Amino acid sequence: MAKRKDILKRFGERVRELRKEQGYSQENFAYACELDRTYVGGIERGERNVALRNIERIAATLGISVAELMDGV
Amino acid sequence: MAKRKDILKRFGERVRELRKEQGYSQENFAYACELDRTYVGGIERGERNVALRNIERIAATLGISVAELMDGV
Repeated sequence: MAKRKDILKRFGERVRELRKEQGYSQENFAYACELDRTYVGGIERGERNVALRNIERIAATLGISVAELMDGV
Repeated sequence: MAKRKDILKRFGERVRELRKEQGYSQENFAYACELDRTYVGGIERGERNVALRNIERIAATLGISVAELMDGV
């Protein structure tokens, strides 16, 4: 059985997918979230153990609930 | 319009609700999550900006997905 991907990777892929769906560049998305661009890059690469406040900020920028953001994560 | 409760509070209340539903004491739940009991207390009081790895650990202990854990949060 294949090992399930790390949650940081799964979360990063989910953020990238939703960001692109909404037509944001990484830079514009970071700006809209009021997060550093390099930090958003790290999130999308699955390098960041993102916490609730920033999870909420990302969901709010995408206009979805935290539960929707976590769908499939 | 009432200000929406802080996400840390909402998450803490959700964890407490699900933990109690499953009949865990805070101490037993912390043990099952392999987290410190005082840390779990802090989460439930909305004092902790919990990050993905511990969110996953809590969801796994409750036997639900991260999205389900975040339902209503």
